[in-house]
Parts: sequence; structure tokens; C-alpha cells
Amino acid sequence: MNKKPLILVTNDDGITAPGIRTLISVMNEIGDVVVIAPDSPQSGMGHAITLDSTIYCDAITNDEGEQLEYRCSGTPADCVKMAISEILNKKPDICVSGINHGSNSSINVIYSGTMSAAIEAGIEGIPAIGFSLLDYSWHANFNGLKDYIKKITLQVLKNGLPDGIVLNVNFPKLANNDFKGIKICRQARANWVEEFDKRINPQGKEYYWLTGRFVNLDQGNEDTDVWALENDYISVVPVHFDLTAHHYLEKLNSWEL
Amino acid sequence: MNKKPLILVTNDDGITAPGIRTLISVMNEIGDVVVIAPDSPQSGMGHAITLDSTIYCDAITNDEGEQLEYRCSGTPADCVKMAISEILNKKPDICVSGINHGSNSSINVIYSGTMSAAIEAGIEGIPAIGFSLLDYSWHANFNGLKDYIKKITLQVLKNGLPDGIVLNVNFPKLANNDFKGIKICRQARANWVEEFDKRINPQGKEYYWLTGRFVNLDQGNEDTDVWALENDYISVVPVHFDLTAHHYLEKLNSWEL
Repeated sequence: MNKKPLILVTNDDGITAPGIRTLISVMNEIGDVVVIAPDSPQSGMGHAITLDSTIYCDAITNDEGEQLEYRCSGTPADCVKMAISEILNKKPDICVSGINHGSNSSINVIYSGTMSAAIEAGIEGIPAIGFSLLDYSWHANFNGLKDYIKKITLQVLKNGLPDGIVLNVNFPKLANNDFKGIKICRQARANWVEEFDKRINPQGKEYYWLTGRFVNLDQGNEDTDVWALENDYISVVPVHFDLTAHHYLEKLNSWEL
Repeated sequence: MNKKPLILVTNDDGITAPGIRTLISVMNEIGDVVVIAPDSPQSGMGHAITLDSTIYCDAITNDEGEQLEYRCSGTPADCVKMAISEILNKKPDICVSGINHGSNSSINVIYSGTMSAAIEAGIEGIPAIGFSLLDYSWHANFNGLKDYIKKITLQVLKNGLPDGIVLNVNFPKLANNDFKGIKICRQARANWVEEFDKRINPQGKEYYWLTGRFVNLDQGNEDTDVWALENDYISVVPVHFDLTAHHYLEKLNSWEL
């Protein structure tokens, strides 16, 4: 018998979010689970880390599962750093982040706290997966995701991932979670067109809320995550964090610099 | 005569930082400058955006230069979104971010508020450059950088940048800023080995400061930004924000998913 893998679980919606509770329950079926997750929601935190402020990290119990749990005052990336440097005695075999309440497909990966945790684990040389469901509701329906999450996690444990690559998995929002299957995809080209909502506070001062509209610049292309999700497939995108545009190095060398 | 370019300037150290004041002075020599920058330091903010909180943005005057200035309560990425959606009447011809007080070479690009602003501009289809000096001091010596910044900015205005690519420019810390020249580089593979500094607060509760040690995994390779900077060159890395690991798509399709 192989020994059980050590699994690090984190997220960006906070340690009490239904998404991470579902993810913990799946991981308890696979290995020894340690949860280190933010004590409050951290959506849109991107790859922020806490440099100018203190970080708290406390052992807690949230339910009767076998996992060990710690709530951390830092960002998702802080949680992973804390886990690896301070909490765990050995490097985890895998890190899973989520299940995020909301999409991390396409350009959203850049703004995502969920994916920043997975990427941070990847930087530390740990195979990692971010899971997200395209439903922003706290009471989203996570039923029907568990088998897919288990299958994908077991495949990563079996096959490993190359240095510098983590997986970004998104589930479409379907009434009965009747997914058509899993598609390997590329990140769709897209951006957000911002629509700032300008208001006046009780003291008469202008302020804004950030809102926006997602614009898919890859309309019609069937190899993207957005297409897969719109067509009821689960999308899996391999994500790397070497941001060098290698194909442009030669061209740039021809500039007069 | 060509008309003057519209230049958006931002940073992550805050609108009063000497780095951005230097950058503004250079840009005033090139075009019409609008500054929209954080009202407080935002280092390590990665690509965070403000979703759960209000944003303030006020016109201010910091010096006698010709630029228009706005200080914003949001993150660097928020500043760029605010500039494009609310403040500017037309799309800027270029966005420059910095000069950051400290390195954004190698893996630091992931954690960098300076580069997140440049990347946000890139996502919006605006040519963009992040500038950083490898000196964390507030009173860093920015003399000698100006001519290089002007040259690189003019080259980007002249040549443009392809969709999806922005530039990450780092200056080494040298006593007299005797740079050997400019090197086009790739991002060095590296990570931070965290060393959390555990302390006890006055109430007897444990807390942490995040500290760490930079480890270059690309030691000896002369095509990296870290090598260039260690050898007194200014590094220029083309950065992309399509995080898809395209070369791994085929392999992943062979998995049992």
C-alpha cells in the first residue's frame, strides 16, 4: 500500500466558505489534509502578499472532519507561504485551492486569489490545482463537482505536473450539474470593460464602486476555456508563471536601445 | 509636427514617492501627462483589485509640473481602470509605471503592484512599461536613469508593442549609476525561501512578519534578467499575460480525464 498523500487546501473566499468545505470533504477521501485559509474573503486579491503588516495564524476546528485547520489573516499567497515555511513538517504532495465561488476562466486568472494560491504552490515546486464554479452565490450548488475534483486530483497525483505549471479548473453553472465532460483548453483572450458606479457619500464626497462587463475577444474559437464553459464542459487550462514572452525576445533585440 | 502623445503615469509606492516624481519629470519632456496613482504604498499588491470596498479618486497638485494628477484610494490595477474608464477622455498612447523602489526582476514580477499596473494597461490594449530600481530606499538615487527611461519610452512609442505584451525594465543599484547598457532578457527562474519572523504581541498572542531570501534557480545563465542586473546592465523583459502553458496542452490531453 502506498502511504497517503499530504494535501494542502486553501482558497480566497475564506475558511468557512461552502466551496472550501466541499473541497476539504473530497480531499479527506484521498489523503491527509491540512487546511490553511484566509479568515476573511480575499476575492480579487491577485498575487498580493503581506509585506507591511503582521500576519496571524491560528489552529481552529470547523467541523468533525479529519483535517487539521488553520485560519490566517493574510492573503491566499501568504497562506501557502505560511503552510510551507511554518505549519507543515514536510512539503505537501499537492496543493488544491477553492472551490472558488465564481469564475476564474480567461483573464480572470490574473485577478484571482484562488489561482494565486495555486501559483504560489507551483513556485514552491508543489503540484497545484485551482477549482472554481461559475456561480458567485454563497449557496452555490457544489453537488456533482466532487467526482470530477477527485478524478482530476488523483490524475495530478499520479502523473505529476512539470516544473512551472499548475492547473486552472472551472465548472460551468448548470441547473443539475450535468457536465458534458472535461475539456483541455487555452485561456480565452478577453478583458473587462469597466463601468465605475459613481456615488456621493453622506459627507457629500464622490466615491466609486468598480463594476464591469466581461468581453470575450476569442468569440467563436472552440479551443478556449470560455467556449468550453458556455457549452457545458468543465475547462482545464495549464497555467504557467514564467511571464517572459519568449517569442518576442528576438524582435526586441532589433530595437535601437 | 506630430501631436504630443498622451501618457498615463502610475506606480505602487504612492503618488508622493520620489520614484514616480522622477518618472513624471521625464514624461513631461515627451508628452501630455496624466498621473493617477495610489494615495498610499501598495507594494506586494500583485494584481489585486478593489471589489468589496469603495474607491476615492481626487485631483491634486504635488508640484509645479505640467501634468494633471489624481490620487486614488485603490490598488495600482484600480488606478489604471479608473484612468481609462473615468478620468481620461481618450485612450492613452502609453502607460508607464514606477519607478519602483526595489526589484521587480525574475519571479518578483508576480507580486509586483508596479507591473500589475503595466499589465492592466496591456490588457486594455495600451503599450505599457514598468520601471524599477534595485534600491528599496525612499531616498534612492534616480539620477542617471532618466536618459534610459526616455529612450526606452520613445522606442515603445515609435515601434509599438504587440497585443498581449508589456515591458518590465529593471535598473541595477550602482554607486554612480554607470550602467553598462541595456540587455533584452528572459525572466530568471527563482523563488523566495520564506523565513517568517515569529513574535509575541503585547497581549501575548503569536504573530508573524513575512521575510524571505531570494534564490536564483538560473545561476550562471547569461540570458536572464538577474544575470544582467548582477553585471551592471539594465534588464528589459517582454512580459505576457496569456498564462496558458501552450506547450503542455497536448500532453494534458493524453491524461485519463
